[in-house]
Amino acid sequence: MTRFSFTVHATDGAARTGVVSTPRGQIRTPAFMPVGTAATVKAMLPENVRATGADIILGNTYHLMLRPGAERIARLGGLHRFMNWERPILTDSGGFQVMSLAGLRKLDERGVTFKSHVDGSRHELTPERSMEIQRLLGSDIVMCFDECTPFPADEATAAESMRLSMRWAARSREAFGDRPGHALFGIQQGSVFRELREESSQALRAIGFDGYAIGGLAVGEGQEAMFAVLDYAPGLLPEDKPRYLMGVGKPDDIVGAVQRGVDMFDCVLPTRSGRTGQALTRRGAVNLRNARHQDDPRPLDPDCACPCCRNYSRAYLHHVHKAQEIIAAMLLTWHNLHYYQELMQGLRDAIAAGRLDAFVADFHARRAEGDLPPL
Amino acid sequence: MTRFSFTVHATDGAARTGVVSTPRGQIRTPAFMPVGTAATVKAMLPENVRATGADIILGNTYHLMLRPGAERIARLGGLHRFMNWERPILTDSGGFQVMSLAGLRKLDERGVTFKSHVDGSRHELTPERSMEIQRLLGSDIVMCFDECTPFPADEATAAESMRLSMRWAARSREAFGDRPGHALFGIQQGSVFRELREESSQALRAIGFDGYAIGGLAVGEGQEAMFAVLDYAPGLLPEDKPRYLMGVGKPDDIVGAVQRGVDMFDCVLPTRSGRTGQALTRRGAVNLRNARHQDDPRPLDPDCACPCCRNYSRAYLHHVHKAQEIIAAMLLTWHNLHYYQELMQGLRDAIAAGRLDAFVADFHARRAEGDLPPL
Ligand SMILES: [Zn+2]
Ligand SMILES: [Zn+2]
Repeated sequence: MTRFSFTVHATDGAARTGVVSTPRGQIRTPAFMPVGTAATVKAMLPENVRATGADIILGNTYHLMLRPGAERIARLGGLHRFMNWERPILTDSGGFQVMSLAGLRKLDERGVTFKSHVDGSRHELTPERSMEIQRLLGSDIVMCFDECTPFPADEATAAESMRLSMRWAARSREAFGDRPGHALFGIQQGSVFRELREESSQALRAIGFDGYAIGGLAVGEGQEAMFAVLDYAPGLLPEDKPRYLMGVGKPDDIVGAVQRGVDMFDCVLPTRSGRTGQALTRRGAVNLRNARHQDDPRPLDPDCACPCCRNYSRAYLHHVHKAQEIIAAMLLTWHNLHYYQELMQGLRDAIAAGRLDAFVADFHARRAEGDLPPL
Repeated sequence: MTRFSFTVHATDGAARTGVVSTPRGQIRTPAFMPVGTAATVKAMLPENVRATGADIILGNTYHLMLRPGAERIARLGGLHRFMNWERPILTDSGGFQVMSLAGLRKLDERGVTFKSHVDGSRHELTPERSMEIQRLLGSDIVMCFDECTPFPADEATAAESMRLSMRWAARSREAFGDRPGHALFGIQQGSVFRELREESSQALRAIGFDGYAIGGLAVGEGQEAMFAVLDYAPGLLPEDKPRYLMGVGKPDDIVGAVQRGVDMFDCVLPTRSGRTGQALTRRGAVNLRNARHQDDPRPLDPDCACPCCRNYSRAYLHHVHKAQEIIAAMLLTWHNLHYYQELMQGLRDAIAAGRLDAFVADFHARRAEGDLPPL
């Protein structure tokens, strides 16, 4: 069986391109992982997610443990088979969404107890239970159970939270055990405090993981503050392991993070935007709800090869969104995921060719031009 | 250019199988037309509607005239291009849905004035305006503007309504004019009264149409009363023209109507059911909302080759329906349309082989067995 491994093929400044190998297939990095919260990437069939170029998707432990339940998914043959996606899946630990979605939470050294937002039932998540759930799901890349430090937090609070996460990281590592072909990622915390990010990185490196996430960002601090942390945070982590920036982000967030040495990303933006009439394009965001599109026969993006742009006008997309037709979410989600994957391919190619600066300059220049002028 | 034509290739009792030829492609009969109300067959991409075996879809004049508007669709190149369906489209006249959906209707000899259910704006539909709208949409098969007689209606009311529809049929024919490659269908009315259906058929034959619909059925009279009408109604219409039973129906309605000589059908049932968790299968209806499916690893129908049945378990379908995920509507709609088209292919093959009775007996026997037994 292929072991989990990571190879960097080329670098350009701090940016890297390479391949994460898993028994379920390769993940080309920098990689964007579409989010499949409840065992579906919303409004997409999995074969079409793959057709956009995705090598891996993300599943949410919190949602899946509540409905349909991790033990049930295990009995049904695991998450890959359940949702008809045979390539790699990364699952989060559940910690972040317990704190943002569940009712009546109680956090202590042991873990978190909470009430389900679905049916009010009581549940507990600990590092050990999170590892068990992610094993039951059959996840290829398992995330440590941690506390995502809220923002803003003063340094003492951030330190306390980070140190709890580091103790949980050790328990996660212990509970994960030895599972050839599966990976466990540690999560760096420390909010916007460099000393804490350094301390966290030391703690994680001492435990040893197959990859490392940068957590606690994209939680309201803004792009400038996030980039300020990313100017040093990836460099605190081992060079020979993949670095994953959790929950990021907008296209320009991703580009800036890749320039700073991040290898993996996930975000609900392309799928969520697809359901609210917002398209993400190389010319920036385009709001199909706007009446200016109602008579526009042009495609959303004339340079995009996705089925949405090849086959439909802006007028059609405006109409089906306004009429609340399901096809609006299907087509816009497909375009948005296609655009994200094309962006990642562009970044990978640019790094490999040693011309990332030129690629990024072009990326920003095209966005600065804005959307197509009205007809 | 191919003219509109109909050829019967084989008969078996009153049932017929053949081909309707149009410039946009052939329609194998008996045919089921998926409903694409607002320029989309809900939850399906048009290439996937085609993949189920559909030769033609139906568009709704009432919905499209209100949103996005017939003139707008014409400016954008017509309905086929707008919705990315290049094969034949049949449009209804708008009359039926004005009466069921619009607010504040007023009907007189000239036509109907009404308020839009979308934005309250005032509109008028007459035979002339209906023909104009269907021409603007680019419809291949245009339906006469008529009044669908409500059920129940006494004979005097049904006669008055039918005679108004016949005067409107003459005005529709006049307004339609000569449009090579496009067809105009007349609509037989007369409720459940044989003399009125005879009178209506005589009136329509005197005007002359490219095909004939049987209207005013499937409006609450029940299958027995509908079949009693269908025992004679198709035979009142020309043998060499297609016969279309509007708004029908459930699988057993279709089978019974084919046995009685009907060639074309449309119904929202497979698409609407797909969005409410109901699957239509050769074993009858299966309600995926039911908790008995939550641990069932078997496909919805082990004998079905559709993507839903090939790739997903009942447990998955139950889960995504309960979680209100869009993929539930996508997969179940696909299966339901696939099942309908497979049924139509079975009927066509059976008629061609002169074994329709055996096919129908098997159809009923498999439904009588019911759904798969629990595991
Ligand atoms: Zn596109
Ligand atoms: Zn099926």
